[in-house]
Amino acid sequence: MQRALSVSRMTGNKSTFPDWYQAIVREADMAEVSPVRGSMIIKPWGYGVWERIQQTMDRRIKEMGVDNAYFPLFIPLSFFAKEAEHVEGFAKEMAVVTHHRLKNIDGKLQPDPDAKLEEPLIVRPTSETIIGDAFSRWIKSYRDLPMKINQWANVVRWEMRTRLFLRTSEFLWQEGHTAHVSREDALASTLQALEMYREFSETVLAMPVIAGEKPENERFPGAEATYSIEAMMQDGKALQAGTSHYLGTSFSRAQNIRYQSDSGDLEFCHTSSWGVSTRLIGGVIMTHGDDDGLRLPPAIAPRQIVVVPMLRGKPEDAEVLAFAEGLVKALHEKFALGEPIRALLDTKDQKSSDKRWNWVRRGAPIIVELGPRDAASGQVTFMRRDNLRDGDKVQSQAMSRDDFVDAAPGLLAAIQQTLFEEAKASLDANIRGDLTTFDQVAEYFGKVSDEEEETSAFKGWVRASWSRPTGEALDAVEQRLKGFKLTLRNAPMNQPSSFGPCVFTGEPGVEEILIGRSY
Amino acid sequence: MQRALSVSRMTGNKSTFPDWYQAIVREADMAEVSPVRGSMIIKPWGYGVWERIQQTMDRRIKEMGVDNAYFPLFIPLSFFAKEAEHVEGFAKEMAVVTHHRLKNIDGKLQPDPDAKLEEPLIVRPTSETIIGDAFSRWIKSYRDLPMKINQWANVVRWEMRTRLFLRTSEFLWQEGHTAHVSREDALASTLQALEMYREFSETVLAMPVIAGEKPENERFPGAEATYSIEAMMQDGKALQAGTSHYLGTSFSRAQNIRYQSDSGDLEFCHTSSWGVSTRLIGGVIMTHGDDDGLRLPPAIAPRQIVVVPMLRGKPEDAEVLAFAEGLVKALHEKFALGEPIRALLDTKDQKSSDKRWNWVRRGAPIIVELGPRDAASGQVTFMRRDNLRDGDKVQSQAMSRDDFVDAAPGLLAAIQQTLFEEAKASLDANIRGDLTTFDQVAEYFGKVSDEEEETSAFKGWVRASWSRPTGEALDAVEQRLKGFKLTLRNAPMNQPSSFGPCVFTGEPGVEEILIGRSY
Repeated sequence: MQRALSVSRMTGNKSTFPDWYQAIVREADMAEVSPVRGSMIIKPWGYGVWERIQQTMDRRIKEMGVDNAYFPLFIPLSFFAKEAEHVEGFAKEMAVVTHHRLKNIDGKLQPDPDAKLEEPLIVRPTSETIIGDAFSRWIKSYRDLPMKINQWANVVRWEMRTRLFLRTSEFLWQEGHTAHVSREDALASTLQALEMYREFSETVLAMPVIAGEKPENERFPGAEATYSIEAMMQDGKALQAGTSHYLGTSFSRAQNIRYQSDSGDLEFCHTSSWGVSTRLIGGVIMTHGDDDGLRLPPAIAPRQIVVVPMLRGKPEDAEVLAFAEGLVKALHEKFALGEPIRALLDTKDQKSSDKRWNWVRRGAPIIVELGPRDAASGQVTFMRRDNLRDGDKVQSQAMSRDDFVDAAPGLLAAIQQTLFEEAKASLDANIRGDLTTFDQVAEYFGKVSDEEEETSAFKGWVRASWSRPTGEALDAVEQRLKGFKLTLRNAPMNQPSSFGPCVFTGEPGVEEILIGRSY
Repeated sequence: MQRALSVSRMTGNKSTFPDWYQAIVREADMAEVSPVRGSMIIKPWGYGVWERIQQTMDRRIKEMGVDNAYFPLFIPLSFFAKEAEHVEGFAKEMAVVTHHRLKNIDGKLQPDPDAKLEEPLIVRPTSETIIGDAFSRWIKSYRDLPMKINQWANVVRWEMRTRLFLRTSEFLWQEGHTAHVSREDALASTLQALEMYREFSETVLAMPVIAGEKPENERFPGAEATYSIEAMMQDGKALQAGTSHYLGTSFSRAQNIRYQSDSGDLEFCHTSSWGVSTRLIGGVIMTHGDDDGLRLPPAIAPRQIVVVPMLRGKPEDAEVLAFAEGLVKALHEKFALGEPIRALLDTKDQKSSDKRWNWVRRGAPIIVELGPRDAASGQVTFMRRDNLRDGDKVQSQAMSRDDFVDAAPGLLAAIQQTLFEEAKASLDANIRGDLTTFDQVAEYFGKVSDEEEETSAFKGWVRASWSRPTGEALDAVEQRLKGFKLTLRNAPMNQPSSFGPCVFTGEPGVEEILIGRSY
């Protein structure tokens, strides 16, 4: 069967998921590797998706009473010194700026030895310390609290093995940082961000997730509690798609973030932080892509309806173009999912069938092809990308122009809904809740070698009761899971009222936890 | 007279403009210096202005058929080597990354010598080379042209003397890069960007500018023509607020950006680039600020109408709050300047008079104060920030609630218009066109020492005919001007049909050029 993408998810019985992922990133024009190791170029179609994510999430962040601001890219090395003192064998993969000038010396361009910085600067891996430093100056009294700041920025964490959108040295993200009077307030804010991420993922990205608390060993260093949303990719692996941390007073103690209380005492603030990144785009690809390429939920599609005119260099072209222009104009006046419809007339000088397949690969939700007969009869012929084929055959629908314009908002809403429901059905069907011993879990997932892990068969996740061990007992659990390339994902927010015995120890269970392979 | 700001623009006959500028940046909560030399923290109110600039300009950029994308922060040193070969005494103030790991060695945190990069990386000072490199891969045929890409990003140019928003080592900007088949197309695109900047500055920032071509000695290195918009600050100095460059084929030759023409030949593209930065915010402050603080044009005010309830910890507070909430809700449903009105109810636990002065300093266009009597009578009392005082006295107006809600869109449009007209009248009145010899120009501006330059008396600009000398003759002109701390700004796009003799040489003039002191 002819497919629009060069690689399919499975070939025979073998998973080719990693190759398929690379093909979709490349062939859907999402991103490419750059001449700088570990960095990516986000191409216009991929960046358009990120802009949609930014706009729709930023609205939600502002509704939470959070203000955007911008903090410096460079952080003085001394800001990391305190952390280094406390962490044994501290070694951080970070980009270090040591000079502030290039000079041509003996015909060779190099860092100018006369321009060596007294103190090296670190390219921010996260802005916890520099924002905390600002908070310590900005917060004086309980009247200044809560303080809620968000930043959209680029960050750098040196990575040796990179994969576009999923793990790159430089990536784009948002980081929210809040300070509060009490533990209750800070925890409520942490959970509000988590719930915002869940609702955003499901409503905007059409990507079902499970929100829950990470086990102790997976906490952000220094956090009292770390929460995540976990999404299931089409190879059954988990993608941690967003995190929210309750930091207690450990960061405010380290950075002297204090407020004067009503009674005049100086108290430490309780703080939280939370973030999502361009990794979400990788999640969208691995949730909705198919063997013809990407399928974009209309809420984040830079163009929701693409009109491809079939032009033949003949006089009737003018009629086709005029009909197509009128259609796009009429669509722009309609609203779908609460915003004006984003339609495009693709007039590129290229064969219309090449253009059609190009938009199929890129995942435009609705693709319209218009020829002279359509223009003459006032008909519109279109494909829904969520439901491109009937068996092997590509299927299209026809409507009168006016009916199509009227139907467009409903069609886009239906595509958004269909993509979510498909992914939700797959998530629900692939969490096993019937395994009660570690042997059963081990047998179900099976051993895989390092090489096999990437292409291992679809298994999904297991949800099992556990006794929530801590310290060394938790380390032991982690080691046993590691033998099967498994990790603890999170303990879902929705828990039953009673629990079976712990899948690891046989002791009485206290909560249910998700187990699976992951990115 | 009591003013809301701690520093006024003049004290007696002495200009205190630089101190006033610093005071406004600080007291209007726009930005602050960071712990990293030369970098700034853009605070929420300042960043809110930048977000408005981004949103309103991004719409214009997209309407020009330009796509946004994102390119890496780091650029390999070798990308600068070619430039260094050609430029005598090449030395660039740029941040250089030399290591990718920090390590605790003998109790001291430092760059890990084992993690030294083979090739240093440069933090982008501009993305010309890395985007050009992508263009050379992306462009194959004339069908791919024009290619128009824009990036919103942070860039770094090491600066020794910094001033918030005007000159900082790190700043935020947009950079447009386009490639075309012909000189005509590329030049048209260059001028389209220039005109977009002019229209944007005047319509959105209410900042009148003069668009024109920079003289040869002020061109971007490698450009065939550089255009700018120049705005006049309230100390009479010019601020170059945006630039657009026609680069000919010099960049495409250096980076091998070629296309296959209709006839099958490989041809070099003609390219352009154009940018504006957070410097625009400095321009807004120095155009519209007064001795009470900032005055923000409604189109870029993060909050256009701020409602300050006068609360006294008494039972009638509830009524005042309910009235204020209803007012804000009604305002949010109205549109002004083509967008929903951005109103805020300021419920911070602070004295209402402190809050009022806070919003005066920050420049909120309309400030409403509501007390129990207003709530009882359904009245709204408000101040217009563009016209705060009658003589020394602060003036306010009163209207019924419904009348105010209906009048709000018109009031905001009127404030936008008033701020533009005030600045336009000042610009027009302060360009002298009657000086015909260099001696007259020199006498008018007068000599100032390095120390006096910052606080020199208001002079505005001179517009004079010149013969457009090049090479050494132009260098000589530059040197003569330098003695008076003057520079050539640009040759305005609108030129008369005949010219007097050259102000520098007495030879026949060929165009008019602006002369002034500048930032």
